[in-house]
Amino acid sequence: MTPTITAFEASPDQGQGLARDMRVRWALEEVGQPYEVRLVSFKAMKLSAHLARHPYGQIPTYEEGDLVLFESGSIIHAGLLPSEANARARAITWMFAALNTVEPPIVELEQAPFVEGDKPWLEERIPMLKDRIRVRMDQLSNRLGDAEWLDGDFSAGDLMMVMVLRRLEGDGIVEDYPNLAAYVARGQARPAYRRAYDAQLAVFKAASGG
Amino acid sequence: MTPTITAFEASPDQGQGLARDMRVRWALEEVGQPYEVRLVSFKAMKLSAHLARHPYGQIPTYEEGDLVLFESGSIIHAGLLPSEANARARAITWMFAALNTVEPPIVELEQAPFVEGDKPWLEERIPMLKDRIRVRMDQLSNRLGDAEWLDGDFSAGDLMMVMVLRRLEGDGIVEDYPNLAAYVARGQARPAYRRAYDAQLAVFKAASGG
Repeated sequence: MTPTITAFEASPDQGQGLARDMRVRWALEEVGQPYEVRLVSFKAMKLSAHLARHPYGQIPTYEEGDLVLFESGSIIHAGLLPSEANARARAITWMFAALNTVEPPIVELEQAPFVEGDKPWLEERIPMLKDRIRVRMDQLSNRLGDAEWLDGDFSAGDLMMVMVLRRLEGDGIVEDYPNLAAYVARGQARPAYRRAYDAQLAVFKAASGG
Repeated sequence: MTPTITAFEASPDQGQGLARDMRVRWALEEVGQPYEVRLVSFKAMKLSAHLARHPYGQIPTYEEGDLVLFESGSIIHAGLLPSEANARARAITWMFAALNTVEPPIVELEQAPFVEGDKPWLEERIPMLKDRIRVRMDQLSNRLGDAEWLDGDFSAGDLMMVMVLRRLEGDGIVEDYPNLAAYVARGQARPAYRRAYDAQLAVFKAASGG
């Protein structure tokens, strides 16, 4: 049975592949699993049909027969983990590290201009938010060292961390860590990444009439 | 082999069971797995011996023979999931929802007084942070409805969500949602929760000479 995922009808990132459907697309491409895409508008995401799939009214979701999942972390989980038990547990650790330790301060930096754009304190808060992120980057860079991936072969943990680090593009942070910048570039060079990226870009181009 | 977890030598929450070792203790109690505890000071957490276990210098960690894990999400993962594949995938979805969707804005509210306590804008930001959290509580309350747990039987997804909601104690938010307040209370009433709570409280009392 071909699974169906949901994605933005018109991604606010203009097709840069930063929306979270990209994580699921990439994972499905890595394991060679074809998938269908249901596009949803911002309005439709808050209506009951989509809320039944995703209680927080976001994308992506994953449907396969009776199974409905709604967090990109859990969706990726299924297909891209080592078979050896300890290696699998460590890859899952890195998924949670990406999503619970590294991503939250990055989301704060991203959201601040939208949430507090009209506030006089924004200019002073941005450097504080960047400093919080740099602490996490120092630690991640130290752990990665000269390794190609975070723990042995490429896994869902790397996929998630690369996508989380991509959210910092243009912020002048990852660029200060050559090993992290090279790590992100290695992820982006994978053929499965390219296929996923092209697929989401095609959706954006179609929506914008490009 | 008895696993070893790490916990704060002197928890900053004064033994309220809000530190993340409580999540792992509770999970291990639910599955009847004995464990050892290595206590670490704030100073020791930033030294190389602990950083080798946890690249972000936090607690908890989990060690079992050669296996070393460092995110509470991945540690809990192992023992407290349904055996049926779809139910397991949905429980994992709820773990990620708790950690990547519900917890981050709660952590922001918690940290604001520490990070921005001397800033003139704190008083105006606190209600904004609480409103962000209320959006997530509305959605969670709608999904939970009159159910006992989030998806069938109690799982690691509920364990994580209960612990995340507990971080809002005293903030006057969860109290506005009777079904969420009752859900947290159901979690706290479980015998395994009580055993885990008592164990972490004993550590705090010993550290404080109580």
